[in-house]
Formats: sequence, C-alpha cells, structure tokens
Amino acid sequence: MIRAGEAVNDIFVARDKQIAHKKDGSPYLTVSLVDRTGDIRAVAWNNVQAISKAFAAGDYVKVTATASEYRQALQLVVRHLERTDAAEVDTLDFLPATDRDVEQMLDRLIQISQTVENKHLSGLLAAFFEDKAFVDLFKAAPAAKRMHHAYLGGLLEHTLSIAVLSQSVCGHYNGLDKDLLLAGAILHDVGKVYEFSYETSIDYSDAGRLLNHIVIGVEMLEKKIASLDDFPKELALVLKHMIVSHHGTRDFGSPEPPKTLEAVVLNYLDELDAKVTGIRTFMEAEDPEAAWTSYHRILERFFFKGTPAASGTKED
Amino acid sequence: MIRAGEAVNDIFVARDKQIAHKKDGSPYLTVSLVDRTGDIRAVAWNNVQAISKAFAAGDYVKVTATASEYRQALQLVVRHLERTDAAEVDTLDFLPATDRDVEQMLDRLIQISQTVENKHLSGLLAAFFEDKAFVDLFKAAPAAKRMHHAYLGGLLEHTLSIAVLSQSVCGHYNGLDKDLLLAGAILHDVGKVYEFSYETSIDYSDAGRLLNHIVIGVEMLEKKIASLDDFPKELALVLKHMIVSHHGTRDFGSPEPPKTLEAVVLNYLDELDAKVTGIRTFMEAEDPEAAWTSYHRILERFFFKGTPAASGTKED
Amino acid sequence: MIRAGEAVNDIFVARDKQIAHKKDGSPYLTVSLVDRTGDIRAVAWNNVQAISKAFAAGDYVKVTATASEYRQALQLVVRHLERTDAAEVDTLDFLPATDRDVEQMLDRLIQISQTVENKHLSGLLAAFFEDKAFVDLFKAAPAAKRMHHAYLGGLLEHTLSIAVLSQSVCGHYNGLDKDLLLAGAILHDVGKVYEFSYETSIDYSDAGRLLNHIVIGVEMLEKKIASLDDFPKELALVLKHMIVSHHGTRDFGSPEPPKTLEAVVLNYLDELDAKVTGIRTFMEAEDPEAAWTSYHRILERFFFKGTPAASGTKED
Amino acid sequence: MIRAGEAVNDIFVARDKQIAHKKDGSPYLTVSLVDRTGDIRAVAWNNVQAISKAFAAGDYVKVTATASEYRQALQLVVRHLERTDAAEVDTLDFLPATDRDVEQMLDRLIQISQTVENKHLSGLLAAFFEDKAFVDLFKAAPAAKRMHHAYLGGLLEHTLSIAVLSQSVCGHYNGLDKDLLLAGAILHDVGKVYEFSYETSIDYSDAGRLLNHIVIGVEMLEKKIASLDDFPKELALVLKHMIVSHHGTRDFGSPEPPKTLEAVVLNYLDELDAKVTGIRTFMEAEDPEAAWTSYHRILERFFFKGTPAASGTKED
Amino acid sequence: MIRAGEAVNDIFVARDKQIAHKKDGSPYLTVSLVDRTGDIRAVAWNNVQAISKAFAAGDYVKVTATASEYRQALQLVVRHLERTDAAEVDTLDFLPATDRDVEQMLDRLIQISQTVENKHLSGLLAAFFEDKAFVDLFKAAPAAKRMHHAYLGGLLEHTLSIAVLSQSVCGHYNGLDKDLLLAGAILHDVGKVYEFSYETSIDYSDAGRLLNHIVIGVEMLEKKIASLDDFPKELALVLKHMIVSHHGTRDFGSPEPPKTLEAVVLNYLDELDAKVTGIRTFMEAEDPEAAWTSYHRILERFFFKGTPAASGTKED
Amino acid sequence: MIRAGEAVNDIFVARDKQIAHKKDGSPYLTVSLVDRTGDIRAVAWNNVQAISKAFAAGDYVKVTATASEYRQALQLVVRHLERTDAAEVDTLDFLPATDRDVEQMLDRLIQISQTVENKHLSGLLAAFFEDKAFVDLFKAAPAAKRMHHAYLGGLLEHTLSIAVLSQSVCGHYNGLDKDLLLAGAILHDVGKVYEFSYETSIDYSDAGRLLNHIVIGVEMLEKKIASLDDFPKELALVLKHMIVSHHGTRDFGSPEPPKTLEAVVLNYLDELDAKVTGIRTFMEAEDPEAAWTSYHRILERFFFKGTPAASGTKED
Repeated sequence: MIRAGEAVNDIFVARDKQIAHKKDGSPYLTVSLVDRTGDIRAVAWNNVQAISKAFAAGDYVKVTATASEYRQALQLVVRHLERTDAAEVDTLDFLPATDRDVEQMLDRLIQISQTVENKHLSGLLAAFFEDKAFVDLFKAAPAAKRMHHAYLGGLLEHTLSIAVLSQSVCGHYNGLDKDLLLAGAILHDVGKVYEFSYETSIDYSDAGRLLNHIVIGVEMLEKKIASLDDFPKELALVLKHMIVSHHGTRDFGSPEPPKTLEAVVLNYLDELDAKVTGIRTFMEAEDPEAAWTSYHRILERFFFKGTPAASGTKED
Repeated sequence: MIRAGEAVNDIFVARDKQIAHKKDGSPYLTVSLVDRTGDIRAVAWNNVQAISKAFAAGDYVKVTATASEYRQALQLVVRHLERTDAAEVDTLDFLPATDRDVEQMLDRLIQISQTVENKHLSGLLAAFFEDKAFVDLFKAAPAAKRMHHAYLGGLLEHTLSIAVLSQSVCGHYNGLDKDLLLAGAILHDVGKVYEFSYETSIDYSDAGRLLNHIVIGVEMLEKKIASLDDFPKELALVLKHMIVSHHGTRDFGSPEPPKTLEAVVLNYLDELDAKVTGIRTFMEAEDPEAAWTSYHRILERFFFKGTPAASGTKED
Repeated sequence: MIRAGEAVNDIFVARDKQIAHKKDGSPYLTVSLVDRTGDIRAVAWNNVQAISKAFAAGDYVKVTATASEYRQALQLVVRHLERTDAAEVDTLDFLPATDRDVEQMLDRLIQISQTVENKHLSGLLAAFFEDKAFVDLFKAAPAAKRMHHAYLGGLLEHTLSIAVLSQSVCGHYNGLDKDLLLAGAILHDVGKVYEFSYETSIDYSDAGRLLNHIVIGVEMLEKKIASLDDFPKELALVLKHMIVSHHGTRDFGSPEPPKTLEAVVLNYLDELDAKVTGIRTFMEAEDPEAAWTSYHRILERFFFKGTPAASGTKED
Repeated sequence: MIRAGEAVNDIFVARDKQIAHKKDGSPYLTVSLVDRTGDIRAVAWNNVQAISKAFAAGDYVKVTATASEYRQALQLVVRHLERTDAAEVDTLDFLPATDRDVEQMLDRLIQISQTVENKHLSGLLAAFFEDKAFVDLFKAAPAAKRMHHAYLGGLLEHTLSIAVLSQSVCGHYNGLDKDLLLAGAILHDVGKVYEFSYETSIDYSDAGRLLNHIVIGVEMLEKKIASLDDFPKELALVLKHMIVSHHGTRDFGSPEPPKTLEAVVLNYLDELDAKVTGIRTFMEAEDPEAAWTSYHRILERFFFKGTPAASGTKED
Repeated sequence: MIRAGEAVNDIFVARDKQIAHKKDGSPYLTVSLVDRTGDIRAVAWNNVQAISKAFAAGDYVKVTATASEYRQALQLVVRHLERTDAAEVDTLDFLPATDRDVEQMLDRLIQISQTVENKHLSGLLAAFFEDKAFVDLFKAAPAAKRMHHAYLGGLLEHTLSIAVLSQSVCGHYNGLDKDLLLAGAILHDVGKVYEFSYETSIDYSDAGRLLNHIVIGVEMLEKKIASLDDFPKELALVLKHMIVSHHGTRDFGSPEPPKTLEAVVLNYLDELDAKVTGIRTFMEAEDPEAAWTSYHRILERFFFKGTPAASGTKED
Repeated sequence: MIRAGEAVNDIFVARDKQIAHKKDGSPYLTVSLVDRTGDIRAVAWNNVQAISKAFAAGDYVKVTATASEYRQALQLVVRHLERTDAAEVDTLDFLPATDRDVEQMLDRLIQISQTVENKHLSGLLAAFFEDKAFVDLFKAAPAAKRMHHAYLGGLLEHTLSIAVLSQSVCGHYNGLDKDLLLAGAILHDVGKVYEFSYETSIDYSDAGRLLNHIVIGVEMLEKKIASLDDFPKELALVLKHMIVSHHGTRDFGSPEPPKTLEAVVLNYLDELDAKVTGIRTFMEAEDPEAAWTSYHRILERFFFKGTPAASGTKED
C-alpha cells in the first residue's frame, strides 16, 4: 500500500488519460494507474506534452512518482512515465485471476474428456486440447466481463465445473447420451476465448460484440470438425445445437432453444454454475458483518448472507 | 381389450354424464367410462331416470353392459349401473401411477433426511415422516396435472430426485448449507398434497386453485414447526423462503425470488428435474420411428429424439 | 432549525457512521444525524475511539455539539455522543407519520368490522382487534417503504380507506358477498406489520424480504382461525384467497390471480387507493407553482397538477 | 321453441349463407337463421338460385319453412325466403339487450350530469344530451363485442355505473375535481357509438377497427367543444386526456397513461366496472350447480362461484 | 379437376398414411394425395398389406384409382399404387412456386452483385454465384415455411427485392457503405438453403430446427471466405455481423442486435419486404368481395383490403 | 468562446435559477445561461433581489457580466441582467437547428405533394400547405426531444425523407396506393407541431404530454377535411388510420396497428428514417478516433463506427 510522501517506481495499466488546464492556461495531465490491487489517480504538472505523447490509454506504463495527499485522497505526482511492452509484463499482475491452479484444472478437464467413448467426439476433444494456441487462450480467458468468473482462468474454472456436474447428472437420469453431454459441456463456451479481450483489461472484443460467443463457438467447432476424418454429419448437428441453444431462450441470445435432452441439461447446469458462482463472489465482496448484501442491480434483489439481524423481525 | 359383442361387467370412473333425447322425444343417457387403460363411450336406452339418479359424474360405477359397434367405434350398451364407494376400489387401477416402487422411494428419502445434522431441521423432517396422514398423501400425490410427474407417486419421485441431486451439488460447491438445502429439497413441494385432488382423477383442488401449493406448503411447514420446541425463528424464515422462492420468479408464481444460495440451487434443480422428466415422458409417448416429436404446446417447440432423417439436410 | 454557531443538545437517529483519516493519519468520525425534520452531517475530531464504540448505526443517540459551516453547508462538531435506549424515545419524533388521528381511524375501522353479519368472519375480525400486540403494530405500521402511505399509521389509513370504499361498492353491485369483501378489505395487508421494520427507520424486515407480506398475512390468518371454534374450511379458503390474490397478477407478487368477484373488487380498490394516495403525496411534495411534477421514476411519467402554462401550447 | 314437424313463419337474421352440391351435382342452399333466442340451421332444396339471389348474409329475412330433425338436431326446410327491410323490424328482437330500463338509465345519467357546476363542462354535457342523433346511438350501443356489457344498451349501463361510482369516490378523497371526473366518466366511451355496428349483429365497424374508440371519442369531443362559446383550451386538454388515457397503459390502447388524479381514478373505475360486470355475466351463463366456471380464455383462469365441492380438498 | 366416376392415373405426394379396420376386423388403408392443385383423400380396400409396404408418407407415388363420392366429398378408391423416384418427377409440379422467371431474377441479382466495387466483397459474391451446387439450391429454396415467400423460388425473389431496395436507400442517405450493404443484402439469408427441406414438401430441415439459418449462414460465409485470398478479418466481421443481426432483436432470433448503420438498414428492409409481401399474399388468398380479410393469427389482426362496407359506419 | 477576464454583454436563455446563501446569511443568485454554443454558470453577488425579480427561468435575458474562473471552470459574475422579449430574438441563435435549407426542403415536399393525383388528397395537402400559420410551425418544429431530428427544422427534414422513400417503395411493389401512401407520409407527424414547444428550448408541450401527437394529428386532419367539400368518408378513415397506426404497435403508442398495406409501409419507413438518422447523429457526436461509440442507453447497445481496433480480436 502506498503512503503519502513515498516514492513510487512501478508498472501500471494507464486508464482515462486526460489533459486539463490550470487557471493560468498551462496544461497538466491526469491519468488513472491500475494494477491488481486497485487504482490511483496520478497527475503530471511538468513535461506534459512529452509524457502525453509517450503512451496511450490502455498501455502498460512504467512510472516514477511521489505520493501526496489531495482532498483527503492519495495521488501520485508523476515525474517520469514511459510505455512498456505488454510482452514484458505478466498480465496476471494487472488483472484479477482465478485463485485455483490452472494447470491442475486443465489436467482434470482433459481427464474427463478422455472418458468420452464415442471415437468421433473423443477425437474432436483431443484435437482441441492438442491445439496449443487454443489451449493458451482457453487457460487465460475469463468467462464473463462481470457477473460470474469475470477473471483470468474463469472460463476454464466454469467449464470444468459444468463437466463435473454433467458426470453426476448422467449417473442420475436414464436415457442421456453421456458422451454428447460431456462434449457439449466442455465445448459450450469455447467461443469466449475470442469474445473477450483480456490483455490489459477484461472487455468485449470486436468479434464478441459483433458476433457473440455462440456464433464464434460454432465456427470454431466447424473448423475443427472439418480437420477430422469422417465426422458424422448428424453428430456435428446435435453437438453444434448444444452450443447454439445453451442460453436456453432467445431472450438470452440463443437463436434456438434446447431441443434435445442433453441440450436441456446443459442449459440448466450452465445457469446453475453461473448463478451460484456469481452470487457467491458478490456475497464475498460485501461487508462480512451485514446480514444482507447491497442491491444486485442485474439480478434485481438483495441477497441474504447470514444470521438475520434481531432488529429485522418484530415477531419475537 | 373389449371387443364388439362381448359382455362387460366391471368398475369404471364415470365422466361427462349427459341426458339426450331421441327423435320420439324419449330420453337416453350417455356417459364416458374410464379406467387406467383409457375410456369408452356408454349409452343407456332403458331405465334412464333410474340409472341417472344412481350416480354422478366423478363417481366410481359398477357397470353391466354389452359392447357394440357404432360409427366405426365401440360403445357399451348399459343394462345396469350403480355407484360404488371409492373406499372399495384401488385408485391405482383407475389413475396413471409411477412405475417405480413407492415404498422403496420413501425409504430412500427418509434415509437422506436422516443425514441432516442440524437437530431442528432433522426434527422437523422426522415430524413430517412420522405423520402417517401426511405420508399417505405424500406417497399418493402427483407432482403436476400435466407437464411432469403427472401421475400417482409423482410427487415422491420428483422429491427424491431433487434430494439426491442436492447431495451431489453440496459436494460440488463450497459454502452451501447442506442441511438447509436438503430440508428445502425434501419439503419444497409438500403443498402439492393438497393442491391436487387425485381420488378419481388428477385435477386441481379448490385449495390448489385458490391458494397455490407455495402458500399451502408454508402453512403446513408453520404448523409442524409450531409443534416442535424452540425451532429457531431465523431458521424457520430461511426454510420457508426456500418454499416461497422455489419457482424462481414472480412470473412462475413465487412471491419473492431466491435470495439465499441454497434457494438459488433448489430453484435450478427443480427446473432441471421437472423439464428433463417431463420432456423424456413426452418423447416416450411419441412415434418411436420419428426423429422429431410432435409440437410441444407449452414448451413451444419440437424435440429431437433420434437419428436425423437423411432427407432433412441437403448438405451432403 | 439549527444555525451556525449554535449549541445543539438533542436526540437523533445515527446513520452512515464512518471512520476516516486526516492527512496526519489521525482518525476522525463522521455520522449522519436524523430526526423527523431531516438530517445533518456531524463530525467528531476528538475522542474518536470512545465515541465510536458508544453507538452503532441505527441507534438513537444523544448528542452535544456545536453547529458550524463547512463548504456552504452546516455540520455539527460533536463533543459528546451516547446511545439512548429506543424505549425512552417516541418513535413519532423520528419517523414520518400520518397526520390523521390514529385512534379515531382505528375506532372507525372497528365499527365497520362490526357491521359484518357472518358470525365466523365477525368473530375472526374481533379476534384480531382484541389482540393488543397486533393492534399496537397495526396502528404503527406503514403501508409501504416508498410509493404510498410510506409513514407510520399508513397501514391503518390505507386499510380504513379500502374498507369504506368496499361498503360503497357493495351497495353498487348486486351479487357481492358484503361480509366477505369487508373482511378481506380489513385483513388484506395485515402481513405488513411484520413485512416492515419501523423502529428507527422504515425498511423491509428480514421476514418481509424473505417471505413477502402476502405469505406472512396468510400465516397470521391461519393462526387466528385455528384459535376459533368451527371456522368453516370453505370460508377460510375464500378469505385466504383474497390475501393471496390481492395484487392482481403474478407480476405483482400474487401467486394466484383473483378468482372470486370479491377478490376482483378488492384488487381494484387496493390499486385505486394506493395510486391515488401515492400520486397525491408525490404532487404535494413538488413545487406548488409548477404545472407539472418532476418525473416519477416508478410510474414512469410526469404528472399534471394544475393550470397549464400558457407557453406550453402554441395552438392559441 | 320450435319442434320437429311444425310450420315456421317468422323473421330472422341470416348468417353463413352457403351453396353446396348434392351427389347428383344439383345445388342446395344452407343458411343459419338467428334471433334473440339463438340460431337454427336451415336448408333450401328447391328454387335455390332464386332464393339465393333474394338476400345476402346479414340481412333480415322473412322465412316460410317446416321444422324437421336431421342427425339429432332440428333444421328448417325452407320453402320461401325473402329479404326484409331493417327499418321494419325491431332490432331488440334480434340482438341481446340490457334487461334494465333504458329511458330510466338515461334520465339518471342526465340528472348526474346536471350536478356538474362548472358552466363549460355542464354546457358540454348538455350539448351531448340535447343531440338527438347522438342520444339515439348512445342508448342503443353496446360497450363491447365480447367481455362485458356486450349487448344493446350496454354502453349506457356501463357509463351510468361509472358515473355513480365517480360520485362516491369524489366524496371519499380530497383534492379531486368532481366536475372534471364526472364529465370524464360520462364521456369516456362516447367513441363506442361509432366503434361498433349493431344493426343486425354486434361487431366492430370499419371506423372502430381503423381508428379505435379512443381516437373517435376525442374527435367527437372536439367537434362538440368547437360548437360552444369560449370553452377554455386548458379544460379541453385535461378532459380529452381523460379519454386518451382511460385504458391506463399503451398495452391496452391508450397513447398516453393517466397523468392527472382524475384520469387515474377513471381508469380504475372503468377496469372495475368492466371486470365485475363481465365476470358476473360469465358466471351467470355457466352451470349453476358447479363450484367453478369453465376456463375464461381471455382472463386466463377458472372462476370460483360457490360452495367448494367436498371432494376438492382432502384436508378434512 | 377430378369428378366422381372418373378414372385417375397420376403421380402425387403421399401424406398421412394410415391403416384402419372395418367392423369385420379387416384392414383398409387411407392416405392423402397431394399435388400443386390441392389434396384428395384416397382409400384402398384390397391388397392393403402390399400397397402399404410399397411406399412411405412423403414419397412420390404413382396411383391408379377411381373417383367416387363419400359423405358429400370426393375420394379415390385405389387399385394400384407404387413409389416413384423423386429424381423422375419435377418438384415444381407438386409444390407452390414463384410465378416470376427464376433465371431472370438470378441474372438481375448477379448484375447488382457486380456493381460492388470492393474487390474482396465482389470476389466473395462471385464465389457464391460461381458455386453451381449453391446456385441450384438458392434458385429453388423458399424464404419461409409460412408467412412470406413460402414457395419455391421465394428466397431468390426476397433477396432480389432487398438488394434493389438497398440500392435506393444508399442513394438516399449519406454515410452508408454501399458495398457492404449490398453484400449483406445478397447474403443475409443464404442459410435458408439448408434451413428448409423442399423436395416433396416445404418444411424445416433438421439443420434448420437445430441451428437456425443465421448460424448456418455464418458458417457458409466463413467457408467461402476461407477459400479466398487475404479477405480482411475486419471486413469479415462486419459482414458476418449483418447476418447475425438481421432479425433485429434477440426475440426474433438474432444473438446480437444491429450495431452498424448498414446492419440497421438491412434489418428494416428485411422486415418491410417480408411483411409487405406476406400481407399481400394473405390478402390475395381471401374473398375478393370482402372489405376485410379473415383474422391473421400470427400478426393478430384483420387487414383492410378495400372499399369499406356502407353498413360499417353510422356516421353518415 | 468566452475567456477569463473578458467582459460579456449578450443575450441568453436563463435556466435553473436559484437563490443560495453565503455563510454570513446574505443571499446570492446562480443561474445557467444558454445559447446555441452551450451553457455557462453565472452568479450575482449584488442586487440579488432586484435581479431575481427581473426574470424567470426560461426567459431570454440580456446580461452584462465579467468572466472569471472558479474551481477550474469559467463563470460569469453578473452585474446587470434583464428580461428580453422573445419576439426580439431569433430562436435559431439559441436552439439547435437543421443544417439544411428549410425553404428548399419545403419546396421539394410541396412538389412531391403535387404529384398526388387523387383530387381529394391533393386538395387536402394543398389546404395544409396554404395554411401559413401551419407552415410556419411545420418549418420550425423538431421531430423529437431526443433520439432523432431533435432540432428546429427536424420535422420537415424527417417528413421530406419519408416522402422521398415512399416514392421509391411505390415504384418497387405492385398494389400500393401511391397517393394514399404519399399523403400519409406527408401528414403522419403533423401533430408534432403542437406536441412540442420550441421557443426557448425543445420540450414537450402540455398538449403533447396529455394527448400525444397521434391524437393531435388526427384532430388537425379532421379539421382540415371538414373545411373541404365532399371529402369521401372512406378515404378519411384510411388516411386517419395511417396517422393512428404509424408507430406500429400499442407498445409504441399506436392505438391500432397498421391494417392496410400503405400503413404497414409507412410504419417501416418511419422506423428506418428515425433510426438511421438518430444513430448517425449519435455516431457523429462521439470521439472520431474510437471504433465504438459510448453506450446508447435507449437503444441499449454500443455502435460500431469504424475500423476495428487491432487489439480487439486475438484471432490473428
């Protein structure tokens, strides 16, 4: 934690870069500096033009500054600031990330994929996991911008969770095609590796906003299938259908609703995992003393975390 | 199966009783006779007044008749018909019922309830399962009029399924209160024992139409809790909340949406089990040769059951 | 009204208690002090730890302070502050309350309840009005947190209004069961006495957020009915139905819509009274000169109060 | 009531006129003949061309025929049929009509209109009631095609009911402009005199389908206002607003929602009267023995009329 | 037109094949025979097993039969019936088809595609039009199963119409990318060539029901783009976006709404052409004498075709 | 542009006038001063009562002041301020206005109106364009308060655009009544001349909020029609229907949906023009460098303006 008076010499992501003017008309620069622990306001009073030219919003920047206090908040007075190549930094220092072990999660998911007996589906899953470029993205990608698993590694965490749940459910109900459900569970969100950009911040990519991960995912599936021999046309259809329908209704972005039992199951497991994980994260970020969370704007309710306050009910 | 010319001497449920008139003005009686295998039209040409007075629609009736053919369909010409006391018949002969063993399902559910460690919840569940009048209804009740588990024993089957799924999910996620989830799963639909009438047909009861099983269920819970010592007020609140919110949204009849993690989980497991079971039943009732089911009016889609017809896609 | 420089020595409700730090690192405490006339910011520069330990947000506190001006607003510099027992203060001094006479309203409502001729319903109403604990809450409770009758005594005011309107409507239409409608009108919102907490501020209680006043109301009704002799089961059903359905649709929280004529009438009278009263209160709080109110966010419109401004229409 | 074998010599409304062909290729004519008591199928075997040319569907026709029985239903074998001028028949013999006294209802409505003190509004109402052409239509028009007051005189009955309710409500709440509310209540549905056609059957007119009675009503109001001296522009606006907004929301056809207190009240009284009257009529048309009505397709529920059947609840 | 007594010797599509039983228990076969002029019921009394084995529903069948009259309708009594290979018949004789010249429409569309100046888009369009397999399907496909252009050639007719309208709109507004809009207009519905099956009847294919033409279309586009050199990634994105978003909202099946000006324009032109053409077709199929059509169930209204009936309005 | 230290002597529109108090209790006045280039905060320290009495919010005011800087923003210190008669100023200096030539647009619209061949419609259009009071308003009115064409002259610009598009569409489809469509296009929004007030700011008028431009437009049409000889009743109906239905659905304020082909076309052209123009304006107001606009709150999406940022997609 930075304290007033300390010297600062570190790398940050730059955001909200702005040039303003003092009363005497001379310019100064303000910028928000972000790392994994939060953000701090910074200001450069001198060399404004030079500093400004040296970087753009979104860049990694190496900053030399002094911390001071202004209107009851800390700010950095910047003396030197220069752009740093993204390749030289470890993204994980700047973006929120899963606290679980990524390699372990990947191993477990691959093990599950190896229980698939249908040779075509098993071959398809192998083709994905042998594609190093894909796996690198798949290990890094978040599952969302907000709401749930909105951190690096979140997509893998979410996918593994649904794959495990799918195994339970297959043991529970008769008549489900276990191979199809597992393959669908593992592949349902692959489009998210391109739906988001997650180099210096987690946001939607152009492809994500213009096409949606459902469409991107079907394209990726089709490309991999085309690289395999004799993948049955019918099997490709029902597998793609699991991606197409996994949001359950058109309202949530699926062009068609689930029309096979396996697609119906996948939809509910996806909802279950997204909501449980998202709400749990929301609860954990709130005041641990309070019985209720603050209002959740998207889910439109307060959540109840704990022991009801005695003052709440007068029934006593 | 009844054939034209045969004598019939059996018990049925009477439906759609009507008096009509022949061209000469004399009356005759028509009635639909139902048992578990289906229904048949019956007509009484003689003793119409006496026969008519002897029973009401909805009654069990003992019928002596002869089968004949009229306009390419079989009908029974009734010679004698009298009301039979419902207590003398076995409902299971007249209504669709689960094909699983009711006592076994009940035993398994009770075993699960005994894994609950919280003494208040465990005591509450015991109080329900020791209440013979309740248990008799709970073993007989359907879970719905249509859609899913719409047969005698369906409520028990559905409840057991969700209890088992709840156990899996508790092992899967951290931070869930297993006892609360299990108790909620077991009790979430108890109101259905009074929401439906299922003596001579499965239909909504007056209480079901006027109050809804959610409200009835909370009342039943409150009554049992009041009979226990020192049941914590706070625990009663969060448990009742699981009943109140288990339909997920106001649109589906829950006055409040789920506001605890356990209530969120219960809602999705309830949806999952209702839909998987309902769609599977729907699929099984359809032409086994066809790749697609007929149109499902409530879920508003066709379901895909099997190998896609070659004619379906021209991509080959 | 407090002026800069004055000494203040009074009781308030404490809200938004926070510890902050000066540039030199030493702590200070800020808190919002509320009474019926509004709120004022207070700050304690000295004895911060001691003062902070002495109370919690939501407490009544006795404050000794001096008023000063800071950034064009008044604030209190606190010298002494201690918790006061809620039992020693008169809630009415700290919360908004009806400007009508509570005892008169209650008397009139009881008189109306005594015109009910059905002995069961009349007995039930008497049982409620003879229950002192209930009556005390019923006289104090608000009818809402915002929107309409959102003040102490509001529930009684709203209930009386609907009871009177019900009498008019019974005289107007044939075929209504007057006793049932009156009993439903008087009892429809009783669950609100526990849905809200209204000791130091008006807010939802835990029970209110988790169960909703509809469910709480049915429980209260059932408990009272159980204490009476021979209350007819059928009558209990249609009366509870009036509570269950009085919000009209599932969208507004009723698990079942109105299915009796009396329930249909109650729903519209409830809407009428809530809206007329809520809009009238909203209008009264606005600039008396302006023809239009500001935008009503929940009802999503501006309301027209008065003489249209000449500038508004160019048709002249 | 017509019996098989009787001669029939009467006037009906003709509906569903069709020419069909016998196996030998010769034509015959079928037509439905309607009067206030119901409808009967009629067939003409001879003189088919001549009879067919003599009338169109929707005409009043004078019929000479013999009743016979065909497939267990009565039908008329037509010997002679000719068109009758609508001016020669009394519409009330052929269409459902209010069973209340039209002149008495009109007198009472006029009396209420004379309690309006504002001279402009009072003059406007007088102008409507002195317009004989308008009054003739207003006395005859239905208030709807289905749902509520769907019979001759229904518009007057509905209007009077709302005017009376408005008087009650004005006595109940402070701050309402009684004259404005009464005028709005009396005029809110005047557009219905042109929205429907009700000469030989009750249906929407072209103007009704293309413009809606809200728009037609505003036009009628504007025309009458233009004929008066110095009607204040502002008063015209708020009065027209009552017509514009009386359906409450855009979903129900109001281009703007109610934005004055009086418009809010009118909307709820209109809903209340339409629903109470419509549901009561629906209940009365059903089996008087049954506790529940059949399913109401537009309101999407069964209605509960009476003593719950013992079989309905198992709680006993 | 077939008349009673005539011999029939022709090819039809078989539908609704069923085996029934006579009173004596012997089987007979009924089937519906369809060609472009309509359908007729056929029955086989003899050789039932042999005839039944010879064909399946959906097949083209060559039929030798005699027309007879049964219950006032014609039916064919089948003597001989055998399956015919689809390759031997001209689909156009059995399915509704556009009445415009398919080759002319195709030529005009290709000419429009050649006005595209961007070399990548122009190359892409050329690649589609040089793909003979695609062009054959594109010339035959319908644009819908019902609603609009629901006939062979309908897809081409609809596509051409939108391409022409796009040219007009590009001349009208500044700032539109004409090449992008034209390419999007021409390609927006290509997925429909696989969404429907249209060999013996117009219906959804398996791929259509499971994936939707939006997803299929993007796949087709991606495949063609992959076959071209250096197609710019950014251009591919915005072009695919036009397919993804052309239904305007998620409610209508677009995973993302239009986010470029060109996509916004395409969505409205698509709606305009679908509705104008669909409503015009609906109007043309109705009674030419009537001012109003029958009720359009999907668009939920009656349409006004012509001179209003004098009886409709009483304003005269 | 005003700079600190300069003297200001100019006319503005006054907004948000407020009296505040200094620490010593003496009053000062703040007001926002607006012209076409934006707004500036002004303060009067002296003569506060006199200055305050001299004007009301919404007035045009002549101001003598000095610019100074306060908290990094400019403000005017007012020495003298007096109300100016609206008649003396040119509205165009104070409100945003079209950048196209109003007279040229009007001429072109009149020319189009003269291509209408139906003598009644042509006479009606002439009557509007010969009504100087109407034309003056029609040339000045905006088409909206926000969203699209929200500037003086916007109504004319929007109307002309739709008229031109209507001509294209009439050439494109058979079976449209060109005269009816053109007349409807030209008149569909005439009610907006009274729906808005646009003297000192663009806002809804009382009539606009209470009646909606659809209802006002029908009234204006009826008034003009009444002034013509023998305008056919049927033609009036279908023309008014175009105004009534041009928003397409009840959700968007049309009491009836489009029921003629011409009304269907008008609705889509209106949507197309409003959206294309509104989105284009929104895009133009945004950062020209950015590929995406900021979030559009009403249309609920980001819009894509240009070359996708390289960083957006990782597919490379």
